Amino acid sequence: MKVRDGNDLKAFFEPESVAVFGSLRDGMGLGYGTIRNMLDFGFKGRVYPVNHNYSEVLGLKAYAAVSEIAEPIDLAVVITPARTVPEIIDQCAQKGVKAAVIVSEHFAEAGEKGARLQQQLVDIAHRTGIRIMGPNTIGTLNTANGLVTTPYLLGYDSIQKGGIAYCSQSGIVAAQCQPLEDRAYAISKMCDLANKCDVNEVDILNYLADDPETKVVAMHMEDVRDGHGFMDAARKLTTCKPLLIFRPARSEAGARASASHTGSLAGNDEVYDSAIKQVGAIRVHTWQEFWEIPRIFAQQRQIGGNRLAIIAYSGGAGVVAADAAAEAGLALANFTPATLDRLRRIDPRAARNPIDLGPILSATADTVSVQDEAIAAILEDDSVDCASIALYVGVLAPVQYIDELLERLMENISRPVTIWLYGTKLSVLEETSRRLEARGLPVFTELETAVKALGVLAHYSRFRSNLEHDAA
Amino acid sequence: MKVRDGNDLKAFFEPESVAVFGSLRDGMGLGYGTIRNMLDFGFKGRVYPVNHNYSEVLGLKAYAAVSEIAEPIDLAVVITPARTVPEIIDQCAQKGVKAAVIVSEHFAEAGEKGARLQQQLVDIAHRTGIRIMGPNTIGTLNTANGLVTTPYLLGYDSIQKGGIAYCSQSGIVAAQCQPLEDRAYAISKMCDLANKCDVNEVDILNYLADDPETKVVAMHMEDVRDGHGFMDAARKLTTCKPLLIFRPARSEAGARASASHTGSLAGNDEVYDSAIKQVGAIRVHTWQEFWEIPRIFAQQRQIGGNRLAIIAYSGGAGVVAADAAAEAGLALANFTPATLDRLRRIDPRAARNPIDLGPILSATADTVSVQDEAIAAILEDDSVDCASIALYVGVLAPVQYIDELLERLMENISRPVTIWLYGTKLSVLEETSRRLEARGLPVFTELETAVKALGVLAHYSRFRSNLEHDAA
Repeated sequence: MKVRDGNDLKAFFEPESVAVFGSLRDGMGLGYGTIRNMLDFGFKGRVYPVNHNYSEVLGLKAYAAVSEIAEPIDLAVVITPARTVPEIIDQCAQKGVKAAVIVSEHFAEAGEKGARLQQQLVDIAHRTGIRIMGPNTIGTLNTANGLVTTPYLLGYDSIQKGGIAYCSQSGIVAAQCQPLEDRAYAISKMCDLANKCDVNEVDILNYLADDPETKVVAMHMEDVRDGHGFMDAARKLTTCKPLLIFRPARSEAGARASASHTGSLAGNDEVYDSAIKQVGAIRVHTWQEFWEIPRIFAQQRQIGGNRLAIIAYSGGAGVVAADAAAEAGLALANFTPATLDRLRRIDPRAARNPIDLGPILSATADTVSVQDEAIAAILEDDSVDCASIALYVGVLAPVQYIDELLERLMENISRPVTIWLYGTKLSVLEETSRRLEARGLPVFTELETAVKALGVLAHYSRFRSNLEHDAA
Repeated sequence: MKVRDGNDLKAFFEPESVAVFGSLRDGMGLGYGTIRNMLDFGFKGRVYPVNHNYSEVLGLKAYAAVSEIAEPIDLAVVITPARTVPEIIDQCAQKGVKAAVIVSEHFAEAGEKGARLQQQLVDIAHRTGIRIMGPNTIGTLNTANGLVTTPYLLGYDSIQKGGIAYCSQSGIVAAQCQPLEDRAYAISKMCDLANKCDVNEVDILNYLADDPETKVVAMHMEDVRDGHGFMDAARKLTTCKPLLIFRPARSEAGARASASHTGSLAGNDEVYDSAIKQVGAIRVHTWQEFWEIPRIFAQQRQIGGNRLAIIAYSGGAGVVAADAAAEAGLALANFTPATLDRLRRIDPRAARNPIDLGPILSATADTVSVQDEAIAAILEDDSVDCASIALYVGVLAPVQYIDELLERLMENISRPVTIWLYGTKLSVLEETSRRLEARGLPVFTELETAVKALGVLAHYSRFRSNLEHDAA
């Protein structure tokens, strides 16, 4: 049995050459789809179609077998019928291919016969050292080099580069199912571990801990295959970057459903919950939190406390944000006397947290200065660790107005700020979101999530600070 | 003191004539805005601008005082400086105006001086019988007659008519802050009770209980002014239609924030929680739930049990839906032997709840028939009370394909079905949502909310069935 370590995963994300096994039927074949997606994404490495029925596809020479490729191959992407996969993997191993993404289905998730086929893959991996992701996976994505192993045509060709690694145990967390271009989550890597016959959560945590492009890891997992390994790898990762875990299969019904689609046995949720806490990871509870909360770590800021300022343009929004703060472990900041004076000079009603700018702005002719001064007073207060703004955009305050407001304010903002936008037009809300995010301000689809994200940041900052204190 | 009953509120929503007091400055004045919005919405009644500086606005004759209008006036909308409001309301009462929406701010929410002004309004109302909504309110909206009292220009002019009444204690629940046209919530009435100096939650519950256009009431409230009255009115309403309550100010911080923007004292959340349960209302917990869950009642279907079928195109989505079901008090339906046989004939893996259609469709050439037959088998099963579908829309299954799928299925669907859509393009997701909703299928922005809505429906159905049982 070959020795393996976390670095083995490099070939899954940073291959210089990729062989694709699957149907090359024009526009329809899954091999064709993978190659087309990689070309659209501007993959920087070499791509080798392997299919004995074709001599050429999308301008690339096709090969009858992997053995016929003269150059070395780092990664194989296999999307052929299940029964053909073990032989292909064996040939890849003989050729010296380092890693294989097996997209093909009908393995352990599909019953006993599939489980036996999957065991053959495991045997080959152990015998030869080739690493396998899947089977039954969508594979990997890397925004740094344009790698994408998805076999389904995506309909878009650009993803915002950034520091978030999303990894999962389901194909729904992948480029063909998510509005990655529209939402502009800033992504480093993605992967779907699926059946985890070889590469599992331990390998991926070790790889991502060392990946300089990844600043935060968001992990969807239904089960853990190697409990002790997971604890060690997660502990190591959380000392250098945050780890957010979305673990469904909490309920009995969820656990049964999980068993039937990944062949896994999910186990007691309390055990997972306690393990997640012990390793310093943070649990999120919905798909929306899984996708959105990691963005709070994109700029790698830490905060020194949990004191939140809430800036609202509606009293009702301020109350909901205050509730969300309490539930997220945040305290409402008590502004310093100097800040309270500065706010009172604007309007006696301004000296409050949450501040409700709605009635204050409706009582002045100089809305721009009043708004700038009030928000600046709050964001410059040393008793404030972080702030959340519930911001109206629409006829009364158009995109350009909001964008310029935040441009002026951001010059002096050193504290983390999250934004929730509300207004009358979905297209305007989306456009404003993208513009503010381009300024480094994460915009959340729900007010409560915008506040909770800061609670998660405060929680991780405290964890890191305790670690550093213990080490000193 | 004049006698008042729930019917007094008719003038707030169904006035034949409206007098608008406020600045008529072209494009800027708040009186102008209100009138312009009403004209844009095609308000069916007569509108009378009142402002002594103008003789005409937007083609309407303006009056120097309400007393100069020859015709009777049902409703006054007042958006003038606070100090001028008591006199205007007094003049309205003398003219015989039945109701006044007071949009003006700087009353009880703004301190002692404002509280004294507000008391003057209360005195006038008690003395003359004129009813007052607000002050500090956005007022009312009625999709049946095009009434909208919002003074801020909306930028759209159509709202889907339907059975949902949204009422609140904050101007954020109003046409100038929400994408009511884009989201197509099917609305009957809306109102913002704000400072509740006169009209309060009791009046509005009584009015909406009797309103034939309202099938479900969604109420945002931070406090209750008349506890016993609220219990009685809510009990009466829930015997004929569902009442969903979003009550923020749960936390201490939230309660303090609430006091500062509506002048209210929120009180202990446990008391509210218990009262909400006692009256047969259902509590929702986020803005998203407040806006989206009422749509499950739009078709006034009741269900006989809590047995849910989950139809997914991704195993991972099925697991999350199963968790959400458990949390919402729903059980996963056990399909009948006949249904299981029917599903097994399609694919052995189909005979499951949640069903994961992803791998089943990827194993067949005839995806349309397989999908139709599998979903029909489930929706026709008598052991299924309701179903939730997590549906992909995108390159592989475009809008038209999804719309036609649901068109075929809906012919035979008698059970409530909720939809969650996922895919790669936000614009496509929105377009598909609107098309499915036009077929009577509510689409939710989060998978978990799509499932929870069915749990709320099952809960209310059980409550109604128990009531009927007790009465029999």
